[in-house]
Amino acid sequence: MRQRQYQNVTREDIQLTLLQLDNYGPWTVTPSPRRETDLQSLQANLYADFSEFVGRADGYAFYDRFDNVIGVTNGLTRRDHERFQEQVRNQYPVTVSIGVGAEQTPIDALGAATTTLQASGSAQDPDRTEILAIDDTVSETEGDLLIAHFDIVDVTGTYTDTENAGSTTLTIRRTALELAEYMQTNHDSIARFVGGDNMIAVCPLLDQSAFDAARNTVEDRVGVELQVGVGRGATAHAAGYRAKLALEECRENGHRVHQLTHQTATD
Amino acid sequence: MRQRQYQNVTREDIQLTLLQLDNYGPWTVTPSPRRETDLQSLQANLYADFSEFVGRADGYAFYDRFDNVIGVTNGLTRRDHERFQEQVRNQYPVTVSIGVGAEQTPIDALGAATTTLQASGSAQDPDRTEILAIDDTVSETEGDLLIAHFDIVDVTGTYTDTENAGSTTLTIRRTALELAEYMQTNHDSIARFVGGDNMIAVCPLLDQSAFDAARNTVEDRVGVELQVGVGRGATAHAAGYRAKLALEECRENGHRVHQLTHQTATD
Amino acid sequence: MRQRQYQNVTREDIQLTLLQLDNYGPWTVTPSPRRETDLQSLQANLYADFSEFVGRADGYAFYDRFDNVIGVTNGLTRRDHERFQEQVRNQYPVTVSIGVGAEQTPIDALGAATTTLQASGSAQDPDRTEILAIDDTVSETEGDLLIAHFDIVDVTGTYTDTENAGSTTLTIRRTALELAEYMQTNHDSIARFVGGDNMIAVCPLLDQSAFDAARNTVEDRVGVELQVGVGRGATAHAAGYRAKLALEECRENGHRVHQLTHQTATD
Amino acid sequence: MRQRQYQNVTREDIQLTLLQLDNYGPWTVTPSPRRETDLQSLQANLYADFSEFVGRADGYAFYDRFDNVIGVTNGLTRRDHERFQEQVRNQYPVTVSIGVGAEQTPIDALGAATTTLQASGSAQDPDRTEILAIDDTVSETEGDLLIAHFDIVDVTGTYTDTENAGSTTLTIRRTALELAEYMQTNHDSIARFVGGDNMIAVCPLLDQSAFDAARNTVEDRVGVELQVGVGRGATAHAAGYRAKLALEECRENGHRVHQLTHQTATD
Repeated sequence: MRQRQYQNVTREDIQLTLLQLDNYGPWTVTPSPRRETDLQSLQANLYADFSEFVGRADGYAFYDRFDNVIGVTNGLTRRDHERFQEQVRNQYPVTVSIGVGAEQTPIDALGAATTTLQASGSAQDPDRTEILAIDDTVSETEGDLLIAHFDIVDVTGTYTDTENAGSTTLTIRRTALELAEYMQTNHDSIARFVGGDNMIAVCPLLDQSAFDAARNTVEDRVGVELQVGVGRGATAHAAGYRAKLALEECRENGHRVHQLTHQTATD
Repeated sequence: MRQRQYQNVTREDIQLTLLQLDNYGPWTVTPSPRRETDLQSLQANLYADFSEFVGRADGYAFYDRFDNVIGVTNGLTRRDHERFQEQVRNQYPVTVSIGVGAEQTPIDALGAATTTLQASGSAQDPDRTEILAIDDTVSETEGDLLIAHFDIVDVTGTYTDTENAGSTTLTIRRTALELAEYMQTNHDSIARFVGGDNMIAVCPLLDQSAFDAARNTVEDRVGVELQVGVGRGATAHAAGYRAKLALEECRENGHRVHQLTHQTATD
Repeated sequence: MRQRQYQNVTREDIQLTLLQLDNYGPWTVTPSPRRETDLQSLQANLYADFSEFVGRADGYAFYDRFDNVIGVTNGLTRRDHERFQEQVRNQYPVTVSIGVGAEQTPIDALGAATTTLQASGSAQDPDRTEILAIDDTVSETEGDLLIAHFDIVDVTGTYTDTENAGSTTLTIRRTALELAEYMQTNHDSIARFVGGDNMIAVCPLLDQSAFDAARNTVEDRVGVELQVGVGRGATAHAAGYRAKLALEECRENGHRVHQLTHQTATD
Repeated sequence: MRQRQYQNVTREDIQLTLLQLDNYGPWTVTPSPRRETDLQSLQANLYADFSEFVGRADGYAFYDRFDNVIGVTNGLTRRDHERFQEQVRNQYPVTVSIGVGAEQTPIDALGAATTTLQASGSAQDPDRTEILAIDDTVSETEGDLLIAHFDIVDVTGTYTDTENAGSTTLTIRRTALELAEYMQTNHDSIARFVGGDNMIAVCPLLDQSAFDAARNTVEDRVGVELQVGVGRGATAHAAGYRAKLALEECRENGHRVHQLTHQTATD
């Protein structure tokens, strides 16, 4: 099955949101260094809220740097983003600025979100607070979004149940990093670790060869074998749900790449 | 200033806790794949609670793999850990098993925690639930714990305010990974990314040359310049608080490694 | 200023949602009684999430009985409610059933929500889980919703700063209860305590005499003097925001009933 | 079985904590009224955290007025309370002041907590922030604490499954209020609604006649029949756990008052 090249898509269709805590670094040490575990809880709670915010509109969220959090947000409007800023202002000791970009590829969309936010001032400018930098927002894609859901073949038997947890973590982290770099450099995609041994990539319309190459690259660099389910849909959730089903197919039938594109799967 | 070598310490003094969600992978796809953003929120909330649990006893927590979470837990007893398992059981749709290890170095303690938990069954054995595998617990250390708090020199100017957020994240992630691998391999330490551009290492008693070498290794491999504050104390929080103060010294005075060992700093 | 009588409104325009934890009582003691503070946290967290869910659509939420929670939910669809049930299922150890009613008055809408949920089985039937009993949903009202925001005149000076907190709580609770009974019995309204000394009533279109009578009734029965701001709007939030501004007018100018109906106030 | 009178106890043994949000009312309308659902979520989350804080030490928490929250806190020290203030400061947009009292009866202990906090300034004084007003703290009681756990006989059949949820709530609220007033006035006890149809009373050592009288009073005033399990223990949790077991006895065997005092029940 041959997919059309994503370069041929003529409309902007992937919307990325970049959330940035305002002047967060200085706040964490003012008037004196704050307790690290309180900061960890704060960051995790804020990310949990953002994930819920994005998930309500069938998007996807990644914790990224925790003080810079990203999400696929097709369908979320300017007003929705304002509402999230209000929620943070009313429930947290910090505020957030937001940049939103909509482009043909995930990495370009994130680039646009970054640029528009950077244009409004430095992340550590005390006067730059609660910026909402949005050129435009877009609604659900028209079936042009791919989610690829990767995990490690037999991670439990090979690592979790046998290795020092410290080593397992580093192995998984290197796997996720090499995957992310390959996908970003070669396919304009954003791939992130999402817990356990799972990595999720937000992609333009790639064909199977891209995922084969991704697997090979990671195996060459880290010696870890990946399997991947790929799903296509109008929203990150719809595509991601199919990707998860496709990954189940891999687990059950020993496939290493499996894609579900048709409307045979629903949530 | 010459520190005594940590190999000469004769008592077990660092306690690490490994928290593992029971049979989590299968749960996330039963009866059908669960919404990814709900899982992200669940994991983040659970980590926030664990961080609070650990922080109450002046410990430190790292989110690690989210379904495997770790913490420095000197002073937390078997009963405390049972209480946390009870809290999860009563407030979450999942349960957790726990391994605790106490050894002279962080990586050995984590190894002990891993081994004792692995001995109780597989992480994906449906019958292995709410294990509490503790050989022994230890109280606060006797000044033998080091926390090293790293960040990237001028990360905001060099990356956050100028680069695509996607690239910045990968740069920081590679920095954190190379640091973690160096510190684990060479110094039996556990270093983890904790948000922003911050990395925290839990170490035995190392002297300054170890941190110089860590900085050089990361600069060689990734081209990123780190600065590091080092603190010593009886608890992770006490040591970490001093490490943060020491890092402030770096930021203000241009030092690249600064250590606070005396009781001049208090929280 | 004479308002038109709400009896003349011909369309169903207030939508109430009744959230009910499934078979919750038995769960709290199975297999043995669960720790009370864990239950308190669970209930509070679930209510916080529901409040966020309702607030996203400019609604209002009341904690009511905690295992039965209510909200004004105009604009929230069947699909939205399903999404909330999914969120609870994925993040909590309990599930929720939901009834939704849309009628001309708040109490009738809540009655409809209750009846349709009751028709699906008992709250303690183990087989009745995740019911979504909705006859119909309605969008934003057409300016026909009133929110009345009450508080106690000088509560801080009269009570909080001078009385035993135990006595103050009982005084405020009796005030809230008498207000709720009066508003429900005489004006088909739902009034609930919302924290501090604040009580919020969701009302059909009442004129000022109703609020004068409410104040007098409470003063007669409890000896406590209330002031009230009243706002009108298409959503609970829009009406409630004006009600809060109107209450500020009372606090500053000594009015006891103040209403903002025009579009002079915005959030 | 005859209990000794609580008046004969010579040591102060019940510790109550009163948590008060600093200058909260003004904050909720500055610079303009904040969204009500955000405030509801904020209050609920803060209460959930406080309940967890208290529960860690086997205490009990009541949400009370949400901006004034109370807890039974035997065993929690000054340092523990400071830690909770720090947690709030680091994770919320508001701060809290705390008063702690330890006396022979719950209501006297709450009175002492209130008085010591009031002495430090008004709850709406912008300059009174993060007060920690503690004369003394006490450890676990020596078996001198009673918890009485009440609920309504067949609430599901009589109310939840048959009445308008609005009416059911008012009935339960009146029941809880009359119980609280009776227990406070006649037995120096603090009784609070805790969700569902449950009411919990923290009591000195009362004998069964007090609970018979409480049931009769509520039935006379509201027409609602209560059953009550009573437990005795060194902590609120230990006593409350036995009270829950005792209430299970009532539910199964038709008793209306049942007490467990011996160490036959454990958690």
